[in-house]
Formats: sequence, structure tokens, C-alpha cells
Amino acid sequence: MSEMGFLTDAVDGSKVKLGDGERDRHANDWATEGRVEATPDAVVYPTTTEDVSNVVAVCDERGVPVTPYAAGTGLEGNAVPVRRGVSLDMTEMDAVLDVRPDDFQIDVEPGVYGSAVNEAVEGDGLFFPPLPSSGSISTIGGMVANDAGGMGTVRYGKVGDWIDELEVVLADGRIVEFGSKAKKTSSGYRMRDLIVGSEGTLGVVTRATLRLKGIPEQIRGGRATFDSLDDAAGAVFDAVRSEVDVAKIELVDATAASMANSYLGTDLPDAPMVFVEFHANHGVEREVGFARSVFEAHDVASFEVGADDEADELWELRRELGVAVRSANPSLEPVHAGDIAVPITEYPDTVRYIKELSEEHGVPIPCFGHAGDGNIHYLVLVEEGDDEAMREGVELYEKVVEHALEVGGTCTGEHGIGLGKRKFMGREHGEGGVRAMRTVKDALDPNGTLNPGKVFPDDGEDPL
Amino acid sequence: MSEMGFLTDAVDGSKVKLGDGERDRHANDWATEGRVEATPDAVVYPTTTEDVSNVVAVCDERGVPVTPYAAGTGLEGNAVPVRRGVSLDMTEMDAVLDVRPDDFQIDVEPGVYGSAVNEAVEGDGLFFPPLPSSGSISTIGGMVANDAGGMGTVRYGKVGDWIDELEVVLADGRIVEFGSKAKKTSSGYRMRDLIVGSEGTLGVVTRATLRLKGIPEQIRGGRATFDSLDDAAGAVFDAVRSEVDVAKIELVDATAASMANSYLGTDLPDAPMVFVEFHANHGVEREVGFARSVFEAHDVASFEVGADDEADELWELRRELGVAVRSANPSLEPVHAGDIAVPITEYPDTVRYIKELSEEHGVPIPCFGHAGDGNIHYLVLVEEGDDEAMREGVELYEKVVEHALEVGGTCTGEHGIGLGKRKFMGREHGEGGVRAMRTVKDALDPNGTLNPGKVFPDDGEDPL
Repeated sequence: MSEMGFLTDAVDGSKVKLGDGERDRHANDWATEGRVEATPDAVVYPTTTEDVSNVVAVCDERGVPVTPYAAGTGLEGNAVPVRRGVSLDMTEMDAVLDVRPDDFQIDVEPGVYGSAVNEAVEGDGLFFPPLPSSGSISTIGGMVANDAGGMGTVRYGKVGDWIDELEVVLADGRIVEFGSKAKKTSSGYRMRDLIVGSEGTLGVVTRATLRLKGIPEQIRGGRATFDSLDDAAGAVFDAVRSEVDVAKIELVDATAASMANSYLGTDLPDAPMVFVEFHANHGVEREVGFARSVFEAHDVASFEVGADDEADELWELRRELGVAVRSANPSLEPVHAGDIAVPITEYPDTVRYIKELSEEHGVPIPCFGHAGDGNIHYLVLVEEGDDEAMREGVELYEKVVEHALEVGGTCTGEHGIGLGKRKFMGREHGEGGVRAMRTVKDALDPNGTLNPGKVFPDDGEDPL
Repeated sequence: MSEMGFLTDAVDGSKVKLGDGERDRHANDWATEGRVEATPDAVVYPTTTEDVSNVVAVCDERGVPVTPYAAGTGLEGNAVPVRRGVSLDMTEMDAVLDVRPDDFQIDVEPGVYGSAVNEAVEGDGLFFPPLPSSGSISTIGGMVANDAGGMGTVRYGKVGDWIDELEVVLADGRIVEFGSKAKKTSSGYRMRDLIVGSEGTLGVVTRATLRLKGIPEQIRGGRATFDSLDDAAGAVFDAVRSEVDVAKIELVDATAASMANSYLGTDLPDAPMVFVEFHANHGVEREVGFARSVFEAHDVASFEVGADDEADELWELRRELGVAVRSANPSLEPVHAGDIAVPITEYPDTVRYIKELSEEHGVPIPCFGHAGDGNIHYLVLVEEGDDEAMREGVELYEKVVEHALEVGGTCTGEHGIGLGKRKFMGREHGEGGVRAMRTVKDALDPNGTLNPGKVFPDDGEDPL
């Protein structure tokens, strides 16, 4: 560890942590826990942009990898320092710098938690629409790095659609600003959008100007249950095709529902469900009625809609679903928390395909997620410690990704590539597409300093 | 010209034009006509992606510049072949390839005119929301290259926000696909968004999958007149701040109105005006009423709202305004068709600043444009042939750009950088920001084959 001494030339020594506890805590994220040993040589907690610049610059000079680390909630190993070096923990840069309600903008440091953005602007009647379900436990920096999506994405788009400007430290330590505080610009390359979703491999975000929106005057939430999963998935497709103006439309299959009941103590019916939310400034009942008529055409068994606070419990449950399905049965181990997205016309067939795989192989695969985006979260669960079952589980898991790619979809809707999806990059983007991305990476980070081992399939073995 | 013979090894000879007429026709765009002589050595009309790939590849090998050319309606010299070589005219690649209404997608070749997209999907009840005012005379390829915006951008975003997938030929002739047909993805770098707005300097778009939307059930258009320009600009700001749900909100100042009257034979009042359009599936009168109350707080003199077709004339006039202000007085010459955008809080002051410059110097500067985006189109008009007046005019024109940058805005809201705005790149993005863009350019186009002389301030003298 003593070879990390140069870091204290770059930043105040109190910001450099070399102890085992800190280093171990940065060796994993939610995806890799217990599977990958990637303890960094040092953890640095910068508190200013200059700190970030200084650390990245000295590491770049010395060939020491720097892996930005946010809240550690990544699901593809995105922030795991597989080449060791420095884990750059951004959570101390957590200031809300400025709120400009009349411009619908807020400037934040990357370590600000998503929910803190909403708290900072609630008094102005504003909110940050694309927050992921993990909004209260994940940071803006992590969301930018993965171009996160959430339940509101079906109406409002992804995190990347709500960023006006980014301050970024590049691999050589240069500090740059990309984007504009003007709502629209055609000035030069869209570098801001290149940084979004690049998982810390092209630069470290040190400040973000986010765009906000007025909290809708009318919010209604509700739950529809269906007799069959086919009906539920068909109803979602039909709602999207008919442009029912939903702000959230989430599928929860019967397997996921029963796991939620056992883990969270809820009393969901043992049936496929669709959770919906409607946002409007007037006429919200019209949209609720429109949804009802669409759902009725798919033999909806029940459809209950209430006011905002009545639905709160529903969304709280939905947010905890990811953890519930991983943890409900301690004797079952998840293969990987998968996330694919397909064109909406392919959504019902893709859900059916997954359930057929599940039945055929007798393996539970709960499905849920942002149905309106054609986005499916699924978890292949196998007996803990059964290597043969794990091998088969991985095969099933990968079959789903391959199916998504076959029908024109993507291997990752909102979790990024990280370690876990690297093997699908060539299949999704073609050799030429991956090569173009690699060209950009090599140009902006010629020494491979920033988050090495991620995104690209040729960048070392898969440690997962 | 005989040195262009190698082109017929790459594509069928009938697609290569060496005659003066064709070459002269590709020497300019709307911005440079009469100001720049940049006749290409050859014009090539590819009809397939392979044609584009072959031409770009042989040119790249031989160091011959290739400048993609669409409809020639650019306002910053974006497609003018200042280094000669090949003008790659994409207008023969004008097929609508596929329409998938249930996925809200259309696949088109780049030479398809914007209005043709709407015609192709109207029968399915769909439209392409971000079309620029020039939609009937400009192509999708040109719009993608400039990340064009339009009147609908205030509600729907820019062209770049409505692209799911692009097929692109890179500088070495490689054919790649960027983006996804899934509505959302976090798979690898957002190369699609890097290509958008790169003005043909990073690749040539050969196919685009555009996202569509249902035509709203209720459309209302109207016109508000105000006693003062301050009132009009303040009313726009207040409407945006209050989130009145407008689909278009356009400012037309009294100077522009009177020029429209003289050139187009219209009978607009000689007063500052705001044109508005409302889109909704229900409750549109609520939004109209909301707008009325906001406008009344700014002493609106009149506010007339009619059904869709009544407003058609208004929008037709608005679309022709750009030409009208350039041409109304034949003894006046425009300095440059400028386009800036500022944060909406700065919009009223920026409009006032321009009018003060105009009055102070006795120079007409009509202002109009997409007010809700903080986007101002302005034209400094000087006596034709008066060099001293032209020098002063250029100064005024540049003062406006500098003002926009000072208040956090951009030097170009929707026209791109091209030749005309290169000098402001450093000021807007900083030396580091421009250098990062240049790094990307040099990596993806190491020989500088694609549209050389554009975007970057260091790339040769300004021929404008």
C-alpha cells in the first residue's frame, strides 16, 4: 500500500483511506458481492473538483487505475475496481449548489442522493422526473454514469434526458463543461450525452445541472390484476399503443408478488398485476377511464385507483421488489439481476418466452419492471450451492438476453454494461460499433486510467 | 477534374457528376450564397449505403474531402465544401423503408423530406413532432446533422430526442448501427447522440429510425398582440415559468411583422405578437384559458384563438418569416441569419438588449423565433454595398452572440456551428471543451476526410 503515498501529494491526507475496512467496502457492488474480490489499493474521498482533477492526473501519469464509486448500488459491477488502484468515492461531494426554479434547473454535486434533489425543490413545486426506484439510496453521479431509468421513464424519459450541463474531469485531469444552461443548443458535439451512460470510463462527473418539472396537480395511482400474465402484458402493450397517458406502468408477475408477500409481509393477490400512476394538471379521471377501458378489453379482474397517498404503499412495495425477489427464499440464489428492453410490440411475447423457459426447466424466474418501456427485470433463481443448477441458470439468463437482441432489443435497459453485460456488446452493436466506441475511449483516455475492465468485451476476462 | 476518375471505381458512373452546373449548385447553402466560392471537384449521388461506404472509403484513402450535402438550407454554411473534393448529395436516398405504427417508429433514408415523414404516417394517426419550420424543404439527414429544432420543440424536444437508431458510414467506410429499436437502453456509449448534431464531420447517416407520436385530438392555434415587446417577452417567460402546456409559442416583433406584411402581403398588426398552439387529447380549453390569464397579467391587447385550420394561415406565415425578413427590403442586406438561445429567465432581457442595440445604432434587427425555448432568430440588416455599415452590422450581430454566452446561453440554438459560429466555440466551451471534441474528431476521422473546415475554430480561416 505504501506505493499509494503519492496520493497525499494530490489531495489532503485525510481524504485518502488505506485501511482494510474502507478498501473492502469498495471492492463490490450489489451485483458482485461474494463473487468478485476486487479490493482497491486505496480509497480517496475528494471534496472538490480540484481534488478529483489532481487525483486523476497523478494516477494517469503513473498508470494507476481510477474507478469512480458512488453508492455501490450498481447491478452490473459497474463501479467494482477490477484492476485495483484507486476507488474514487464521490459521496462526500454531496452539496446542492444552486436552485433556479424559474429556469427549472438545479446544480448538484455528484454525491447528492436522488431523493435529496426532490427535497431541495419540493418547496418550489418542482421534482426530478426520471429518478430510478433506487432514488433514495443512489446518487446523481451514479445515475448519470448509467443513464438510469425509473418508473417515470415511460412518460418522462431517462436521467440523461434531464441533464442540461455537466462538469467533467477527463482522464488527464482537465476540467471541462459539456452542454449548456440554455434549454436547447446545436453547438458542437454532444459531449454531455457521450459522458452520460459511459460508466465513468470517459470522465468523472463533478457537477450536474439537472432539469426539473412542476409537480403535477393531479396524481392517481392504482393496481390492476389479471387472470393471466398474457392478459397483463397484452394490456400494457395496448395501453402504450393507445397512448394512455401513464406516468408509471409496471408489471409484477405472480411469482414476484408471492415473493413480496413472503419477504415484505404484504398481502398482494397471487396474480399478475399492473401498477399504474397518472399525472395531469386537469382531466386525470379521463385518463384513468381510458386505461380502464383498455384493461377491460384484456379481461382485467380488478382495477382499483386511489389518490396519491393511497398509492404510496404500492410504490413503496414496488421499490422494494428488487430486494424482495433476491431475498425471499434464502435457499435460492439469483444468477444475476437481469434487465433487458425490447420494442413494445415484442413485449408480450418476451414475457411469455421467459415464463415458458421457467416452466420448461422448473426454475423460478420472477419478472417485473418498467413494462411501458418494454423493460423487463428478471431473476433466475437456483438452489444455493448447486453448481450444475447455477450453470443451467446462467444459460437461461443468457437465453433471455439473446432473445431480446434477436427481436431488436437491448441487453441492458438501465443498468449499464459494467462487467456483467460485456459479452453481449459485440452481439448488440456489431464488431464495427464496438470498435467505434473503443476508438472514442482510447482517444479520451489513452492510458486506460478510468474504470478499466468495464464496458468493452476485449478488456480482460470476465471476473463475474 | 480528371483526378476524380477514381470515383467511378467506387460507384456507378451515372452517380458521379463533374459538370459545372451540378458542382456550382453544391458550392453554397442559404448562409453562404454570394459570399463563399467553394465549388466541389465532383458531386456524387449515392443510392445505397454501400455507395456511401465505397465513396467515403476511396476518398479517405486518397485524402479527398467528402462533404455530405442534403437540401442546402443550412444557415451556417454547414454543407459548403470549403476544401473542395466531393460533395456527397444524399437526396437520392429518399425511401421510406418501413413504418411500424405500433412501435411508433419509421425507418427512413436520409434524403427523405421532413414533410414526407408526416405524410407517410398520417394515415396511422401519427406525426414526427420535432420538425423544423423548414420541414417541407429540408431532409431528415440534414436535420439529424444539425440536431434541428422547430416550433414544436418547446413541448416535444429537438430532432435528436426523437431518434432511436442510426445507420452511419464512418470515415474509413465502415458501416455501423448506433442506438437501439428498444425505447430505452444503457448499452455502451451513446454514439447515436454523438452523431446527432455533428454536421457530417464524424460520419454519414444512411438510415434513421425515428420515433413518432399520436396526432393530438385537440389542436388550437392563436395569436396574442401586445402593446410593447417587453410585455410580449415577459408573457412568454411567464407562460413557460407557469408551465402553460403550449405546443408552440413564437415571438414575432413589430419589425418582423411589418416586413412580413410588405413581403408576403399579410395584414398583421404593427405590434409585437406571440403565436401559440395547444395540443391535448382533452381539456384543451383549460390550457387556452390558462394562457389567457397569464397573457392578461402582461396587458395583452388581443388574444384570438381558433381551431386547427383557422391557425394554419398563421403557421404558414410563421414558416415564411425567415425568408420574408431577409427579402422584404431589397436595398437591405442581412449580416447573417443569427440564432442564439438563452436560459428562459434571461429571455426578456436578451430581447430588450437586441432592440436597444437596434435603436442605438439605427439598424433594423427583426427578432422572432421559438420563444419558449429562449431561442431568438435575429437578423441585422444593413444598406447593401455599404462596407462600413456591414462592418458595424457584424459587430452588432456578434454582440448579441456574446450577450447570449455571457448569460449562460449558446451561440447556436438549432442551426449548428458550420462555418459561421466557429469563432465562438472556444468562448462557449472553453479551450478544454473544444479540445475534447477535437480529440473525438481526430480519433474517428484521423485523415480529416469528413466535412473538413467546419465546427472547429482551428480548422482553417473563416471564409465567410
